[in-house]
Parts: sequence; structure tokens; C-alpha cells
Amino acid sequence: MRITAEATEKGVTEHSFTLDRPDEPVPGVLWLPEGASGPRPLVLLCHGGTQEKRAPNIVALGRRLVRHLDYAAVAIDCPHHGERMPEAERGMSREERRQAMRGRLFGEGRRATMERAMGDWTETLDAVSARPDVGVGPVGWWGLSMGCAFGVPFVSREPRVDAAVLGLAGWDESSPRAGFDELARNITVPVLFIVQWHDEVVRREHACNLFGLLGSERKTMHANPGRHVEVPLFERQAAEDFFAEHLGKVAEPAEAPAA
Amino acid sequence: MRITAEATEKGVTEHSFTLDRPDEPVPGVLWLPEGASGPRPLVLLCHGGTQEKRAPNIVALGRRLVRHLDYAAVAIDCPHHGERMPEAERGMSREERRQAMRGRLFGEGRRATMERAMGDWTETLDAVSARPDVGVGPVGWWGLSMGCAFGVPFVSREPRVDAAVLGLAGWDESSPRAGFDELARNITVPVLFIVQWHDEVVRREHACNLFGLLGSERKTMHANPGRHVEVPLFERQAAEDFFAEHLGKVAEPAEAPAA
Repeated sequence: MRITAEATEKGVTEHSFTLDRPDEPVPGVLWLPEGASGPRPLVLLCHGGTQEKRAPNIVALGRRLVRHLDYAAVAIDCPHHGERMPEAERGMSREERRQAMRGRLFGEGRRATMERAMGDWTETLDAVSARPDVGVGPVGWWGLSMGCAFGVPFVSREPRVDAAVLGLAGWDESSPRAGFDELARNITVPVLFIVQWHDEVVRREHACNLFGLLGSERKTMHANPGRHVEVPLFERQAAEDFFAEHLGKVAEPAEAPAA
Repeated sequence: MRITAEATEKGVTEHSFTLDRPDEPVPGVLWLPEGASGPRPLVLLCHGGTQEKRAPNIVALGRRLVRHLDYAAVAIDCPHHGERMPEAERGMSREERRQAMRGRLFGEGRRATMERAMGDWTETLDAVSARPDVGVGPVGWWGLSMGCAFGVPFVSREPRVDAAVLGLAGWDESSPRAGFDELARNITVPVLFIVQWHDEVVRREHACNLFGLLGSERKTMHANPGRHVEVPLFERQAAEDFFAEHLGKVAEPAEAPAA
């Protein structure tokens, strides 16, 4: 994990980094309290399709977790997104990009993209946890839409994740995804699940089906009116409260003895 | 409104009262901060079927709204419940009482029971608002199950209600309730709507249908696993936060000039 830039604003230090992975470097951002030292809970922020690591909602959530809870938060560009976007797709509209990515995200290339994203996130978690200002402690996952499509397998398989905010994604029996029902059932950590009542991208029934599949004893759905990208801002507060409840507080450093 | 008893515990004064209404007196409880003076937001707590004004969840919510927010909260025995229970039903099990009440609550007697409950609540609101330690200010409604069945018409028609927690109730096109769709659509105040995913009393689809009907721009559904009466305790915190957001704070009294 190579730090490539560092900037501090209102008590939050943003570390831009690159993770040297096979085939392709993975760029990311780590948000930490200014002058942080010692371990703290960490939240992995996985952006949605066509978004990137510095999408406004990702930056806002990362900064607020640092400012309000003293947590660490990290985001990366997922495969085919942000700095990893193919040259041919730059300058396309959101809808054009959705079309261009369709095969890679939802078609034949889906499994490869998924496995690539899993590896990127595992190495990101390894690298960030190795830092003394993050450390090995409670870990949260936040991902809606594509961030939930990646989140279901990641949270299901990664024992270091303790709580997850998921949503804006789903499927049902008529659109089976090989093995995905099983992955969802294997998730047992607390989940906050976000649904948009008038979602034009993901059918409400499909999102409800995924919520029902989750194996977690503690899972809560928050559903609001509006379209796919219209999740109300107050759900940021709900996500913050949810992580605060399940990842806990930053331990106070032991007082150094007086000289 | 005749106060029949008064008791204070941990800063909360509980005023037992009787409202003299035609045909039948209505007993109720008003919770206020100890030594309260001046106006404050008020929450009407409508218990569920087979419950009563001092059901544990009603008392807990009333006390917490007083202790945490300095609000007033009021509960009454709804028709056929609590002290208004017919002699013949005393000592019956919850299920036996559900059966015994079926006709009055859901059958031919439904309209009469509903209108009676509406009148009881309107007069309760009139009487409590006339007190200087409550006053005419923001009003919330909290009612699940039967408390939602009564809440839909009450909140729809009563312009003094500013926000409502509803849920654990619903219907769909195959079980039409005359005029109820219209009442639900006419609700425009913010609503927090509670759903239990494995509700054995109210079908999930029916609850979702009612949520969809509500005319409120700001409405949020919180759904959790479990049966009808297993709403998780953390939803009490959510209800408190919701009322705090929409009913606001108690105004600080103007400082009396020094003598």
C-alpha cells in the first residue's frame, strides 16, 4: 500500500493510496482522524455501479464516520470504475456506461469481475489493518446496489466483517444467481438493509427476497419512497448509528505515566 | 378530565384520569415531567388489540418520551379494552379474547367501535391540550396493530397530528376496507411504519400495501424478522428519534426577571 497523497480538512486526513495488485494497480482512499494513532473500527465503503471511490456519498460517509465516531474508512475503485475505467468509456453518460459495462458486470464476465473485486477488497483490508492507526479491530461493510452485489459474497466469506449496510440489490427465484442464495443465507452478522420503494433498477420484490434470505438474526430493512439513487440523507445517520452500535467505540489510549 | 391519582417515579409524574364521555367513562394515563409547567409536544399512545393503557410497551414508551425529551404522553383504554373490558371477558386468554372481540373489532361492529375510538381520542386530545403543562403544540400518534387500525382514520382526519408511528396492520385489494385506502392516501404527515417480517397476524404483503398507500412524502418502513408481538426493542429508540425530529424540542421558558 503506497500512499500517494495526503490532505487534511476539518480534522479528517485523507490518504490517497495505490495497492499494487497483479495485472492492475488498485487506487483507494483512506480517511482517518488527523494525527490518529492506535487501533480503531474500520468501515469498507464499496461504491455503486458507474460510481467511484470519491463519489459524493462515499466521501460524505467516510468523513462523517471519522468526524463523529473517530473510525477509519476506506474506499477503492472497483473493477472497471474510477481510475480503472477503460479509456473507451471515459466521457460516456451514466446510462451509456451502464450499457457498456453490462456484459462485464451482469453477463458472462460477471464471475471474473466478482472474483477480482473480492481479491481487491481482501488485500485492501489486509493492507489497511496492518497500519498501526487502524489495526485489527471491528470491521464494517457499507455497499448499496453494486456495492451490495459485491457485499453479499464478501461479507459471507470474510470472517473479519462484523456488521454490514447492504441494499438496493436483489433477485428472486425467476432470476437465479448461482450460489447467491446460499451466500446470502450464510451472512449472520447484523445487517441494515436499504430499499427504495420506487426503485426503477431493482424490483422491490427482489430486494425484499434478498432481505428475507439473509441469515442474520439482527437484520433491519429501512424502506423509503423514491427511485434507485434517491436514498434519503437521514439514512446516513441511520448507517452511522448502526455502525456505532455494532462496531463500538474507539478504545481510549492508556494514559502515559507522568514523567 | 378528572385526575384520579398521581404518582411520581424517577422524575416522571403519572396522572391517572377519567374522561367523562357519553355512555361510558374513558380511563387514561398522562405522563409528564415532574413539576412540568408550560407547553410541550404531546404523543398519543394507542395500545394494540387485547392490550390496555398500562401495557408494558405503552408505559415504557410514555416514560421514555418524558425522561429523554421532556414531552407529554397520554394513553387511554380503547373500547372493549382494559377497564372497559366486558365482565364476561375478564380472565380469558389473549387468544380467547381475540375470538370474543372479533365481531366487535373486525366484523359488523367494526364501524361502531372505530367511531367510538375516534371520539374518545378527539376528546382526550382536547382535554389534555387544555392543560397548561401540555398546551397546544406539536402532536404525535404512536399505534401499532389495532393502534394503527385506529391511527389511520384518526391521523387522516385530525389536523392537529404532526407525525405518526404506525404499522403491524394492513390490507390489500382482496380484503377491501371501505374508504380505508382513501384515508391512508390522505395521510401526509411524516410516518415511521413498523413491519414484522414473520407476522402471523397481518400478512407482510398487506402491511407493505398500506405503507405504499400512505400519502406522506416522508415515510420510512422499518422491517425486522420475527412475529407480530416481537418488534425489537431498538425500534423504541427509532420511534423516539423520529418524534424528536418531527415534533421538535420543548421551548425553554422565558427567564423571569430578577426580583
